[in-house]
Order: sequence, then C-alpha cells, then structure tokens
Amino acid sequence: MNQPLERLIEMFRSLPGVGLKSAQRYAYFIIKSSDEDAKEFAESIIMAKKQIKHCQECGGYTDKTVCPICLSRNSKLICVIAEPKDVSVMEKVRSFKGVYHVLNGTISPLENRGPNDIRLKELLQRINKHNTEEVIVATNPDVEGDATAMYIAKILKPLGVRVTRIAQGISMGTELEYADEITLSKAIESRIEI
Amino acid sequence: MNQPLERLIEMFRSLPGVGLKSAQRYAYFIIKSSDEDAKEFAESIIMAKKQIKHCQECGGYTDKTVCPICLSRNSKLICVIAEPKDVSVMEKVRSFKGVYHVLNGTISPLENRGPNDIRLKELLQRINKHNTEEVIVATNPDVEGDATAMYIAKILKPLGVRVTRIAQGISMGTELEYADEITLSKAIESRIEI
Repeated sequence: MNQPLERLIEMFRSLPGVGLKSAQRYAYFIIKSSDEDAKEFAESIIMAKKQIKHCQECGGYTDKTVCPICLSRNSKLICVIAEPKDVSVMEKVRSFKGVYHVLNGTISPLENRGPNDIRLKELLQRINKHNTEEVIVATNPDVEGDATAMYIAKILKPLGVRVTRIAQGISMGTELEYADEITLSKAIESRIEI
Repeated sequence: MNQPLERLIEMFRSLPGVGLKSAQRYAYFIIKSSDEDAKEFAESIIMAKKQIKHCQECGGYTDKTVCPICLSRNSKLICVIAEPKDVSVMEKVRSFKGVYHVLNGTISPLENRGPNDIRLKELLQRINKHNTEEVIVATNPDVEGDATAMYIAKILKPLGVRVTRIAQGISMGTELEYADEITLSKAIESRIEI
C-alpha cells in the first residue's frame, strides 16, 4: 500500500470507536471526494482547533470570550457538568434555562484527581458573584460522578446554596452522552436534595 | 452552539455511515487533542488528496506513477476489480501473485454506464502488451458485477485469454469490501470458467 493513504487511515483509526474497516471507508471517501471538499474538511479541523477555546465563565467550548449561554441566561441556576461536551448533551433538554459550569473532570482518587484539580474554585467564585440559588450536579452516574456531587454538596450547603443532583431515569453505569432527551428531562424534573 | 464546532461535526457527518452522535464524539476528540495531532490530521487529509493518484497501469491508488504491485508482479494473471479500494481488499489474500486492473465502475444500464465508460480499453491494451494468460473477474457478486464479468468474457475469449470469475464463498448481495479473508481465498480457489 502507499504511504499517504496508510497515514490517513491511521489518523481516522485514532478517532474513538473507529476500527480498521471504518477508517478505510472514511479514507477512501476522502480520496474520492473533490479537492475542495477535502480542503474544507482539513480546514474545519484546523479552524475548530484554532478558534474553539474555553468560555471564561463556564469553561465550555466557544469561539467567543464568554459563550452565548453565559451571556444570555440566568446564573441563579447553575448546572455542573464534568466535560465541555456535556453542554450540548444537556442542551437537548430545552426546558433548562440556567447556565452551565464545566468541572473539567471529576474527583477521582484512583487517577489522583482531587478537588483542587477540577474547576471548583471557579464554581465558588461564580456562585458568590451571581448569588446563585441552586446548583444542579449533572456528573455521570458512576462512583466518581457521585463522589464529586457529594463533595460539591458538602462545600456549598454551608453557603445556603441549594444543591441538587439529577437522578431518576439515568441508569447506573451508562454515560451521560448516550442518554436520550426524555431520560434527561425526567432526571432534571426529579432531582433530589443531597 | 458555536460555529467552528458545528462545522467540524458537519464534516464528520458527511463521512459514510457516520451519524450525529459519532460525529460529535470525533469532533470533541479533535478539540481535546493537541495542536500537533489536529494539525497532523488535517495535513494527512491534504497530503493524501494531493499525493494519491491513479496508477498508470492498473488504475489503483498510489503515490507513484506506477504502483509497486504493477512494477513487481506477474502481468500474465490480471484480477479485474471495480474500485481502487478493492485492491486492498483483495490483497488480504496473500496467495494471489498477479496484478490488478481497476475498472472504475461496472456496466450499469440503470445508471447509463456502458462498456466505454469503464476502463475496458486499458484492460485490452494491457493484455496485448503483456500476453496475459488469465483474467480473474472479481467484481461484486450482484447484477452489475455479473453483467460486467459476462461482457469481459465475451470480448476476451476470442483473443484466447482464459476468463474466470471468483465464485464460491461470496454470497449474492454482500459487498466485496466486507468479505473475510477465508471467503475471498475460497472464492479465488474455486473460480469457474465463464
């Protein structure tokens, strides 16, 4: 086989969940596409990487300094999530009118990640600044996600902030990313005090 | 959501068989990866598109004028395939020592593609030039693939060339691309005169 093709296949294989056959299909698709389409594909990678940064407020992905959600929505209600990508997952629940706060990880003793390694200080600053009334913790329903939620409740309750956790509907062990809209909607509705 | 991210997701969605969730996963993976990795990904697309062309002999993909297979192997035996990507599929059968000839399509009355629209003239030229003894037709086992094989047999037999068709093992309706090595190997072994 030839080297540029092998390299392109290798690149596609590096994507999460892509095996050799899929990677080959994608590579051949690129080679068969027009020069313009291939260039646009490559450019979209470069541009996304260049322009997308973390929102100064919530830590989510945006091409602005502060993302449109933080600019336009009510900071009295903050939904805490682990990863920037969870913003788009939660946004499928159209009824949520608060803002987000991305922790960039969860507390994980196994991976040597403590409370100071995630964006908890920034969360406290936002809460103080905006007099936030409620924090909904929407980390994944696994051990680390639960531990993180408990820790957040422990530090926020003394400040008089209501701390809730999305609960009903998401089954233990599944990833937030794969939950459907109805399940997420139910989980927000039936959030419980922690 | 933000525009560069949406655009990147859209690009991944344009790949064959990629839905919204997979496209999002790939896009977030790119954004999370290092600047160097993202740049390498983009470059591999550009470079593959730029360097990969059709081999002057067989019509397969290569970054040379003539591909290594055509340069090094015996042209007395030619395996005829429909698409450049089928070369790598057939190459999984390590026992095959002949060369390939890519038709760039099959005869398809429905899609208005006749014998002059695929690389049959080039096949005849190669056969004359190299005194080819046998042509194995390995087009997909569907109506168009079979019709193409029949047509090739019809024009080559008067020239004294043995024309065979891969047969046993590949079930009607499946794509060549997804056949396993053993099935392909059997199909070559049990090729039949047409």
